[in-house]
Amino acid sequence: MKWSSSYLFTLKEAPTDAEIPSHILMVRGGYMRKLAPGIYTYGHLLLRSLRKFEKIVREELDKRGCTEILMPMVQPRELWEETGRWKEMGDGLQKLKNRNGHDFCLGATHEEVVTDYARKDVKSYRDLPFNLYQIQTKFRDEIRPRFGLMRGREFVMKDAYSFDVDVEGAQKSYAKMHEAYTAIFKRLGANFRVVQADSGNIGGNQSQEFHIIADSGEDHLMVCEESDFAANIEVCPAIDSFQPKPPPPLEPMEEFATPGLKTIEALSKAIKVPANQLVKTMFFSASDDPAKDLKPVAVILRGSDEVNPVKLKNHFGLSNPPLMLNDDEVRRVTGGASPGSCGPVGLKIPVLCDNGIKHRFNFTVGANRDDFHLKNVNHDRDFKVTTWGDFRMAKEGDASPDGKGKLKSYRGIEVGHIFYLGTKYSKMMQANYLDTDSVLKPIEMGCYGIGITRTVQAVIEQNNDKDGIIWPVSVAPFVVHICLLDPDNAEAKALSDRYYEELTAKGIDVLVDDRSERPGVKFKDADLLGMPLRINIGARGLAAGEIEILERKTKKLDKVSPGAVVEKVQVWLKEQAT
Amino acid sequence: MKWSSSYLFTLKEAPTDAEIPSHILMVRGGYMRKLAPGIYTYGHLLLRSLRKFEKIVREELDKRGCTEILMPMVQPRELWEETGRWKEMGDGLQKLKNRNGHDFCLGATHEEVVTDYARKDVKSYRDLPFNLYQIQTKFRDEIRPRFGLMRGREFVMKDAYSFDVDVEGAQKSYAKMHEAYTAIFKRLGANFRVVQADSGNIGGNQSQEFHIIADSGEDHLMVCEESDFAANIEVCPAIDSFQPKPPPPLEPMEEFATPGLKTIEALSKAIKVPANQLVKTMFFSASDDPAKDLKPVAVILRGSDEVNPVKLKNHFGLSNPPLMLNDDEVRRVTGGASPGSCGPVGLKIPVLCDNGIKHRFNFTVGANRDDFHLKNVNHDRDFKVTTWGDFRMAKEGDASPDGKGKLKSYRGIEVGHIFYLGTKYSKMMQANYLDTDSVLKPIEMGCYGIGITRTVQAVIEQNNDKDGIIWPVSVAPFVVHICLLDPDNAEAKALSDRYYEELTAKGIDVLVDDRSERPGVKFKDADLLGMPLRINIGARGLAAGEIEILERKTKKLDKVSPGAVVEKVQVWLKEQAT
Repeated sequence: MKWSSSYLFTLKEAPTDAEIPSHILMVRGGYMRKLAPGIYTYGHLLLRSLRKFEKIVREELDKRGCTEILMPMVQPRELWEETGRWKEMGDGLQKLKNRNGHDFCLGATHEEVVTDYARKDVKSYRDLPFNLYQIQTKFRDEIRPRFGLMRGREFVMKDAYSFDVDVEGAQKSYAKMHEAYTAIFKRLGANFRVVQADSGNIGGNQSQEFHIIADSGEDHLMVCEESDFAANIEVCPAIDSFQPKPPPPLEPMEEFATPGLKTIEALSKAIKVPANQLVKTMFFSASDDPAKDLKPVAVILRGSDEVNPVKLKNHFGLSNPPLMLNDDEVRRVTGGASPGSCGPVGLKIPVLCDNGIKHRFNFTVGANRDDFHLKNVNHDRDFKVTTWGDFRMAKEGDASPDGKGKLKSYRGIEVGHIFYLGTKYSKMMQANYLDTDSVLKPIEMGCYGIGITRTVQAVIEQNNDKDGIIWPVSVAPFVVHICLLDPDNAEAKALSDRYYEELTAKGIDVLVDDRSERPGVKFKDADLLGMPLRINIGARGLAAGEIEILERKTKKLDKVSPGAVVEKVQVWLKEQAT
Repeated sequence: MKWSSSYLFTLKEAPTDAEIPSHILMVRGGYMRKLAPGIYTYGHLLLRSLRKFEKIVREELDKRGCTEILMPMVQPRELWEETGRWKEMGDGLQKLKNRNGHDFCLGATHEEVVTDYARKDVKSYRDLPFNLYQIQTKFRDEIRPRFGLMRGREFVMKDAYSFDVDVEGAQKSYAKMHEAYTAIFKRLGANFRVVQADSGNIGGNQSQEFHIIADSGEDHLMVCEESDFAANIEVCPAIDSFQPKPPPPLEPMEEFATPGLKTIEALSKAIKVPANQLVKTMFFSASDDPAKDLKPVAVILRGSDEVNPVKLKNHFGLSNPPLMLNDDEVRRVTGGASPGSCGPVGLKIPVLCDNGIKHRFNFTVGANRDDFHLKNVNHDRDFKVTTWGDFRMAKEGDASPDGKGKLKSYRGIEVGHIFYLGTKYSKMMQANYLDTDSVLKPIEMGCYGIGITRTVQAVIEQNNDKDGIIWPVSVAPFVVHICLLDPDNAEAKALSDRYYEELTAKGIDVLVDDRSERPGVKFKDADLLGMPLRINIGARGLAAGEIEILERKTKKLDKVSPGAVVEKVQVWLKEQAT
């Protein structure tokens, strides 16, 4: 592509609403322009990267027998009522009414549509298994769109759905998609991790996320450096990496005054006990509808630990992480004590004990009386434990659940997600098949997503420096960026044209900056746009019989004779592939 | 693709809502399934055809320097208010409100968005010209969706927009797109015509449509068989192909009673004068808002001719074709006469005379008195003609406006449309550039659309027989359809696999029907799906050393030796290309 006859405008200034490097660079480099919050026009360069990534995705899925289709973005309410998600998805599901007053929504995900599609034609076990996928624009009405395409409203996704006769088949399909996703992100050339994940409200009971590692990632991952274990902190088991001390003799429980000491920090300082030696008590509503039925519970854990709401959600089988009780509710369940003076002793509600206090004895807790605490409290002796369990967040330094080392903390950008759904949707929507035993059975399903636009932005977030983007070859809009420094010099122009034609003929994508701009402007723009290799063609270099080839990633500069350039580019590309 | 491991279901019955062959065949062949009226899921086969057509479109546009981008489907109201089309587009524009109460619409067309995109970056004449295009899903809330994808709500379009410094540049851009579209539809292999068209409410003053010829087409085309003239009947000039007779002596005008004769037919019969010798008078409101300002006009034309509302619309510069006056309004402007007894004599409103009565003398018209007519009426003598003009529909047998023969009538499916827009949008949206003379000027624009989904269905509508679809090679989902008649016969299976691999390696798309079905079922499905070439591999043929190759279009059957099949397919394909 020749810059002068295309549509490509770079900006010097970062957009005011951009918070992370990739968002800034994509706008500055003309990769996209905002139309409305969370809604962007994709420029030609971005579209090229998206298409390249889509090609990788298609190839890996097609290779594994998946069938591509295209489902509508506008979907009728009736289908979403069948699964209850018309209401459950809340305001994130963008609804609309047509001219006849019928309700529709914009596809935020396609489980309902694909299940309806399959139930129309599938009759017998002979029609199974299959895997349907699409690459389609999706829309979610994010409360607070930010980070460009990372948390946008309109975005492109690849979503796939597997249909099998039984659990065994479904798990094979799941494994195949795990394999496909791993191949896809490897080909992308990104630093990524597969992590155990929570299944959220899509349902099912097995799920893994694919994360691209980046400091600005919204997700917190716990990763074992010595093995391939990794989990989203939401579901990562918390296991101490140290040996517990042997239990001391139990002392008699005793109340003491702690006027004004409402926090673990204040108490720790006042009574000179480190926070991780203290025990704190927190109150939650184990209910999806607290207004109707509060179902209060207490959770006790070490003062230095944090409650993990997703673990509580899954423990109680809730749709969403439980809410904490407010001060009034706490006073009601403790017989009048405010948060900060509460503890498990004497409570008439269930008490959940985190495993972290199993080896704690003679500890201090609130007395359920304002400004008083109890010391030398012991579980089982002084209060009844309803359930022991893992209710806390894992921490850096914890033992890896596979026993192979310690956990380290990372930030990740979720770019892929695979779910085993089971029969959740097929049962609700009567997507059945007649089995070999002539019994009508619900189809076993799985669903599998890759954020196409999000992945491409995540690649930029992982690969940039102060000057701009550093594209990996896999999804670079162009592999070679020719800076034609003297467009009016006939020899330079002829050489540029020659390289352009020869490289293009070899299937190597080339962008030629043939604008009438100063070299400095062109170099800055080349660094900003971030193509892997840059070729500088100028009158001065030509006079010396030299062409400069610059690697964007390392800024390593090679000078070669004009005749050696095409060969040099090919060799470099081969090196990248190995 | 192997049928047994893909997702492909054919139906014996036609869907109840399908009115035309292509719609029936696409549903029966599993090419698509209805999700809601006018909203379809595209099956894998259809997606393959769409992708092939998109590839042709992209190649022809890229070759001509167009730049592909991708614009959002969800668009903010504010942009559409700038051009007044938020209201003007009416209920066809699907509107929606997000969670914050902001108004958006689904993109039915993208003039506003692309003009906004360009005005953000274009500053000077140096930034022009360019042509931006996208292939994107669009949505229009059709009152009555029908004919499958032909008049659907959700559909895929290619839309392009040219931006130039001046009229000359814009016309060059227009000509380039005309050339690109011609190349695209030629490569498609469709029987198509380029016709003069009305510009509709997109604006501008030059426009041509690309039509695929098909009996079920919604558009009426007038085509000259002896030249390349063609026009949509909406704008086709009406020119008699016969010589007018010399004028007779003018007789004195005379009123006579015609009790109960309200129609041209009744009058023609009663007074024994053929309809084309009679003159009729019709009344319209030359106003876009008749309720506010009626602006009544009379149009007189031969009894056998039909008024062309689009010509009236353009004559008066209206946004929409004018409405006919109702009976009350007619009585008001004629001083009390009902339609059927009206004529031009004595009217106090403008009288438009169609050219067809220029050579009519001593004719009969209504007397503007119920149950009376006037005979021997003559224009200019008995009533004042406000304007002579072409206000009627052209008819088969009329002279071609280029003077090269007679017009013939065809039905067409509009699949492409090119418009010269001028500065309509750039002026309203302040999309300006600084010219060489340092004056800020509005950008000259053009817009160009191709209905991707509609074209592919139109190809089916043009190419089918009683058994199914007859794909041209250009957009056939697969070129070769192998019917593996005995999937359990090892030799047949091995041969099928060999053909599949060898042909695929040569870039020829192959579908293998490897299901456990009877040959009759497979043949019927192969005819229905319509791939250009079918290869039958069966145990019986193999025993005789013969493989059958069947051309779908002609049903011509060739028997060749197993070793000659791949070569035969390649030769056949080469013949098609020439």
